[in-house]
Amino acid sequence: MNAKNEIFKDASPVLCEGMDSVFGAADLNFEHVLQARQRIAPYIHNTPVLTSSYINQLIGAEVFFKCENFQKAGAFKVRGATNAVFGLTPGQAIHGVATHSSGNHALCLSYAAGQRGIPCHVVMPRTAPQAKKDAVAGYGGLITECEPSTSSREEVFAGIQLSTEAEFVHPYNDPRVIAGQATCSAELVEQVPGLDAVVAPIGGGGMISGTCLTLASKAPNVEIFAAEPDQADDAARSFRAGKIIADDAPNTIADGLKVPLKENTWFFVSRNVKDVLTASEEEIIVAMKLTWQRLKIVIEPSCAVPLAVMLKHPEKFKGKRVGVIITGGNVDLDRLPWFN
Amino acid sequence: MNAKNEIFKDASPVLCEGMDSVFGAADLNFEHVLQARQRIAPYIHNTPVLTSSYINQLIGAEVFFKCENFQKAGAFKVRGATNAVFGLTPGQAIHGVATHSSGNHALCLSYAAGQRGIPCHVVMPRTAPQAKKDAVAGYGGLITECEPSTSSREEVFAGIQLSTEAEFVHPYNDPRVIAGQATCSAELVEQVPGLDAVVAPIGGGGMISGTCLTLASKAPNVEIFAAEPDQADDAARSFRAGKIIADDAPNTIADGLKVPLKENTWFFVSRNVKDVLTASEEEIIVAMKLTWQRLKIVIEPSCAVPLAVMLKHPEKFKGKRVGVIITGGNVDLDRLPWFN
Repeated sequence: MNAKNEIFKDASPVLCEGMDSVFGAADLNFEHVLQARQRIAPYIHNTPVLTSSYINQLIGAEVFFKCENFQKAGAFKVRGATNAVFGLTPGQAIHGVATHSSGNHALCLSYAAGQRGIPCHVVMPRTAPQAKKDAVAGYGGLITECEPSTSSREEVFAGIQLSTEAEFVHPYNDPRVIAGQATCSAELVEQVPGLDAVVAPIGGGGMISGTCLTLASKAPNVEIFAAEPDQADDAARSFRAGKIIADDAPNTIADGLKVPLKENTWFFVSRNVKDVLTASEEEIIVAMKLTWQRLKIVIEPSCAVPLAVMLKHPEKFKGKRVGVIITGGNVDLDRLPWFN
Repeated sequence: MNAKNEIFKDASPVLCEGMDSVFGAADLNFEHVLQARQRIAPYIHNTPVLTSSYINQLIGAEVFFKCENFQKAGAFKVRGATNAVFGLTPGQAIHGVATHSSGNHALCLSYAAGQRGIPCHVVMPRTAPQAKKDAVAGYGGLITECEPSTSSREEVFAGIQLSTEAEFVHPYNDPRVIAGQATCSAELVEQVPGLDAVVAPIGGGGMISGTCLTLASKAPNVEIFAAEPDQADDAARSFRAGKIIADDAPNTIADGLKVPLKENTWFFVSRNVKDVLTASEEEIIVAMKLTWQRLKIVIEPSCAVPLAVMLKHPEKFKGKRVGVIITGGNVDLDRLPWFN
């Protein structure tokens, strides 16, 4: 096994303060969520919950939208990133953190590293939109460009890690990150007592895993639904097959949901999720537009998938109190899907 | 004076419970705001205040956005409309209310009337966008179409009023409406102590007048700035001239701000406003997009004018705590100004 493979071995042990003995999802418990909550509190928002009587009527349920689009850096991922960054020992932190992402995780890890005053190295394809590069740089991320191929990305990332000794923080397959994301539903169950169900989008499964981690302990009767695009339904197929199935190159406007499950998130999805429901691209766009129109909030296409599946399957939610995680609001306003 | 003129006489006496002796703006005091607040509380939201550290840095001030886009019916105007509707005596209420508007006032008056269970008659040009007609009808408003001319509108409206005896509620030149709008800044000063300034858009002047009414009593040292499009700068010109100057047909993307000041709003603008600042169409679009991007909220072009003038004149706000009224979020998502 060469260094390159080692770096990308997703189930590799992760260590952090307060989580020294944690080597995988199975070792996580609610104590880690409480620690995460305390650790990240100074750097994140306790985000508001919004409702719409119009949407309630449409679905025949009481729907509570947990607005992580108002979160620092515009996405829930700042929770996991901040938990990872501030959980590092001083000896680890001095080398900074590193990741390969062109999405919200890169923004959020850059933000978190900036708050701790340590470097954040981000490997991005040179073909990534300039707006995304600008956003990462705007939060202080140090970008190294690679060619738009997995081999180039791995090679460039290995070089960065070798020269900097930065701590790799995976966008979702990392117990520190999952414990951080879990703080979102810990807030939600305090804000909205008596929930019957929670619906969240699923891509790699970081948010869903965090939701499972919290609810299994704090509200075990709450049904957890994962929502996914038809065109990137690897989690739904994995769920039915009982094993991880990864798509090669899924194509959906919900661009935050293209990545596959990994060991640490599969652990939760396979154990704690009630069902994985899917929606078409058109249904996602309708739900996205409806959210903008009625809740008056800017959300990413990915965040509209939960509402899309609820509008498609109202019978599953009728008469219930349902929490929905609005995961982020970093959308390119010049490329809105209903203008295409 | 014929009946038609009588109906449209803007300074005509208005009567409502708790406001029996009020005949104009000069008679309004903070007691009316307190009464309005109590009267409308069951039907409106106490809207949240949002901040953006990015925008704070841009302006060098602490900016607090009072989010009336999250208000019932999507706009602050529900405050004034609800105060007028629920202030009617049972004898008045039985005939319903009426207005001529194709904007937020029509939506909000329809909502308020629906809450009281009385009819709301709305005269709209037959050429108004179907989406606007649908929205008014969606809130239960009874639409009567007129030709797109002032004479047709007045004639049709007079007919409606004659046949229904409905109470005319003017969108802004009505002390009941001004007292209702005043509840917005009454909330704001409780939510954000120690404000140095408040900036709100100005069209007909209902929101600014309400802001003046509240602050003159509760926080007389707070500077009140009105923000207006260059292309509909009748309030700025009126302010400099010391008398109402009305534009004939102003053209701006801030379509909520095209209407002129009237006696009851001029009363407050001429006495309590520190300055009327203006911004170009391009500056308004930049501020609108910045608000969507950074605050993650959907706002109308009109609401972006305050931020536009602040970005244009940061020296006036440097180091200050500034409240900004985000007046509404009813925007046509299929016609966004940066796509034109």
